[in-house]
Amino acid sequence: MHIVTLDLEGVLIPEIWIAFSKESGIPELSRTTRDEPDYDKLMRYRLGILAERDITIHDIKATISKLEPLEGAKEFMAWLKSQTRAVILSDTFDEFAGPLMAKLDYPTLFCHGLELDHNGYVTGYKLRMKDQKRAAVEAFKSLNFKVISTGDSYNDLSMLRAADRAVMYRPTAKFAQENCDLPVAENYAQLKEIFTEFMAECRCG
Amino acid sequence: MHIVTLDLEGVLIPEIWIAFSKESGIPELSRTTRDEPDYDKLMRYRLGILAERDITIHDIKATISKLEPLEGAKEFMAWLKSQTRAVILSDTFDEFAGPLMAKLDYPTLFCHGLELDHNGYVTGYKLRMKDQKRAAVEAFKSLNFKVISTGDSYNDLSMLRAADRAVMYRPTAKFAQENCDLPVAENYAQLKEIFTEFMAECRCG
Repeated sequence: MHIVTLDLEGVLIPEIWIAFSKESGIPELSRTTRDEPDYDKLMRYRLGILAERDITIHDIKATISKLEPLEGAKEFMAWLKSQTRAVILSDTFDEFAGPLMAKLDYPTLFCHGLELDHNGYVTGYKLRMKDQKRAAVEAFKSLNFKVISTGDSYNDLSMLRAADRAVMYRPTAKFAQENCDLPVAENYAQLKEIFTEFMAECRCG
Repeated sequence: MHIVTLDLEGVLIPEIWIAFSKESGIPELSRTTRDEPDYDKLMRYRLGILAERDITIHDIKATISKLEPLEGAKEFMAWLKSQTRAVILSDTFDEFAGPLMAKLDYPTLFCHGLELDHNGYVTGYKLRMKDQKRAAVEAFKSLNFKVISTGDSYNDLSMLRAADRAVMYRPTAKFAQENCDLPVAENYAQLKEIFTEFMAECRCG
């Protein structure tokens, strides 16, 4: 029996901080781990900007509600759920992803959480656990699932390496080159093909 | 961060062998573990009847397609997925549940599988693992989720006991009495209330 785990940003939805930065007109929020590799420092920088500008979770959600999943993502997920189990493993936050999850018909999402005060201000963030993507894949394997995973970037690598089968989805040239033993899918049709082949192999034993 | 695990039959859909027995007009298939406590013996008896009557998986699926989820189940699941993660833990088989999962918009289902030959005859069954419901709850706990579980019967007991919070859904009087420390929900409104309370507690602490 098989299960698919998928990264969220870059696979099904746009990079959420970058899209939020554009939609809200706050260019400083487009900084990513490429600019600031220390994730905690980056997050404190981002939360500082939200606080300075008096932005609550309600404002954030309203802005994110204007974003759309990547073209074809909803149909792809509908197909995938009809074929197997699918769990999205993302390092985003529940409260951020919510409006876009609604537009994807609420697939199952394992991610992290924000800390909010009673007025809806973001006071901090809480990683559910370190390396949660890898841990989830290993948990599914311990439940006797064959796991196929897809993702586009470095925070997916331990998940991709832990899975029974892995496929990179639209990776950067650098990431693809560093992991040239893994197949690449450039669109949902190619992902479907690789997933379908894996599911057929699982059925055969 | 919270996750809900739910039993399937009796909670979201009718008891599938009993409903199949009625719909197909084969009363012998309504035998359950109450009549034959040895599950493997019961399954071999059921598969024997299917073989005798020349019933393929395609016939089974066509019959099950005529069944409906319990009233309100689809709306309940839509609500639940908008609030948290939900995984259905069932001892049924993927191939059986499929047509009813479609009617529930394909929630995530962990169950078992049938063995089929090339003509679609059911040659056997394959339990993904023993006590899979408990194992799944423990896996989710190891991924730092707070788990609330609901089910109606003995094959749910280890899941209910492993969870952080448990609620029986429309249990038999005997099952309820034997587990009188657990709350009971008699309808989806009551389940919603208990789940909502649990999620609020998780947020607070």
